[in-house]
Amino acid sequence: METTPPHPFDQALALQAAAPGRWRGHTSAAYWNMVGPFGGITAATLLRAVQLHPDLLGEPLSLTVNYAGPLAEGPFEIVAQPARTNRSTQHWTLSMLQRDPQGADVLTTTATAVTAARRETWSVSDMPMPAVPAPSEVQRVPLFEGVEWVNRYEFRPVHGAIPTVWNGQGEGSETRLWMRDGGGRPLDFCALAAMADIFFPRVWLRRATRVPAGTVSITIYFHAGAARLAETGTGYLLGRVRAQEFRNGFFDHSAQLWNEAGSMLATTHQIVYFKE
Amino acid sequence: METTPPHPFDQALALQAAAPGRWRGHTSAAYWNMVGPFGGITAATLLRAVQLHPDLLGEPLSLTVNYAGPLAEGPFEIVAQPARTNRSTQHWTLSMLQRDPQGADVLTTTATAVTAARRETWSVSDMPMPAVPAPSEVQRVPLFEGVEWVNRYEFRPVHGAIPTVWNGQGEGSETRLWMRDGGGRPLDFCALAAMADIFFPRVWLRRATRVPAGTVSITIYFHAGAARLAETGTGYLLGRVRAQEFRNGFFDHSAQLWNEAGSMLATTHQIVYFKE
Repeated sequence: METTPPHPFDQALALQAAAPGRWRGHTSAAYWNMVGPFGGITAATLLRAVQLHPDLLGEPLSLTVNYAGPLAEGPFEIVAQPARTNRSTQHWTLSMLQRDPQGADVLTTTATAVTAARRETWSVSDMPMPAVPAPSEVQRVPLFEGVEWVNRYEFRPVHGAIPTVWNGQGEGSETRLWMRDGGGRPLDFCALAAMADIFFPRVWLRRATRVPAGTVSITIYFHAGAARLAETGTGYLLGRVRAQEFRNGFFDHSAQLWNEAGSMLATTHQIVYFKE
Repeated sequence: METTPPHPFDQALALQAAAPGRWRGHTSAAYWNMVGPFGGITAATLLRAVQLHPDLLGEPLSLTVNYAGPLAEGPFEIVAQPARTNRSTQHWTLSMLQRDPQGADVLTTTATAVTAARRETWSVSDMPMPAVPAPSEVQRVPLFEGVEWVNRYEFRPVHGAIPTVWNGQGEGSETRLWMRDGGGRPLDFCALAAMADIFFPRVWLRRATRVPAGTVSITIYFHAGAARLAETGTGYLLGRVRAQEFRNGFFDHSAQLWNEAGSMLATTHQIVYFKE
């Protein structure tokens, strides 16, 4: 009898119930960034805790994650509480904690989420997917080198790839790229949450200079239901991202993610710390 | 001796300390919307609680407010806690509560905020203010009729004003408008937070149909410091907003706010419930 090891994404998201509304997990080497986990895996793991809660109503509608402090290699706990449940929406407050050497809980991450039981209504997209070459016509390249989580994905940048020459001569901040899980894992809400944080720091592109940078807060709005995500399956997503303002140590970006059929799956924004 | 009554905005934001990290306030008739307060005044009041906290570090960087349930006319309490304080950033969790007839606290609103001690760095705007006529060249009109808070502001729409004919024949979702406090109150962080929620529901414009709609969650990123806001003073802000996706009962919008000099003061996004 053969057994297939779980996909690294599912391993990273594995949570054990510790108490009502409280789960234990462990950081994943497969999704390690430079000095901590890839922010997208943290966002996905928080969303997973919401999905595991027995009182869950509906599907993810919005998620805001605040990266309050570093997450060290090792175990962590997530506290997820439905703060208010309405007829068709539910509001969640979340936190991620790690034990310090003295045995005290240290808060690393705060988050809020909204889930909703959605229904058919008048619907229209007001931000159509840009016309770009098909994924098969675009070369596969590494997003950038030197960090592990990047190896979990396949990237085919159409525009605004990471600079190959770091000469301080950047111009724009927009990237358009096809991307998908590198291990053939079908899309779901947690995978979409992680991919919403996949864009390399806009300051690197805008300045063609690689300065230290890290997300402070990200918000994701989910526009598709589980059925649309299942249809998307193992297909590519087109991500488009651009910065709006770089000012006094922080910049923000705004991004959209469509599937190959041109359906908007998520929009996302974040505010990012940068040095110098 | 003459005394000037406080501006209604300052009256609405008045909070009394009830306990450490806990404040009492009261809803404001001057900022009443249809069935509850203007969402912007709620966001501003939560930010005010952060500013009043004795442990505050720095100035507002980001604010996410989740409108979890209705806020009734009457008193409320705000709980504001610094969840984690770093060297130059501080992460806040907030909630707003009202007492129900049985004397139990009911949660109406959750929020998170980040404040930061900002410093001079390389800075650039990547989203320049669009070319529009000066405020003096644009007619002053009501944003829309029938709700009180709208009377607290001055609006001069350049593009995408509220429809005058509700015929279901809308086309785009973008609005550009000059706006400022109608009572000459100089801009500060709380005023900016409120104005970030000033845009009427995009679904009204896109469909030229006035359906019930309400913000579920808003995120505001602050790009200016107190000095820049003080320079802006009583001048106009240009707001630009457009929806991205209307889907199954919810839509999102993305917006920017500049001052007359073309400085980006804030970017903001929200996800909004709509009916039918």
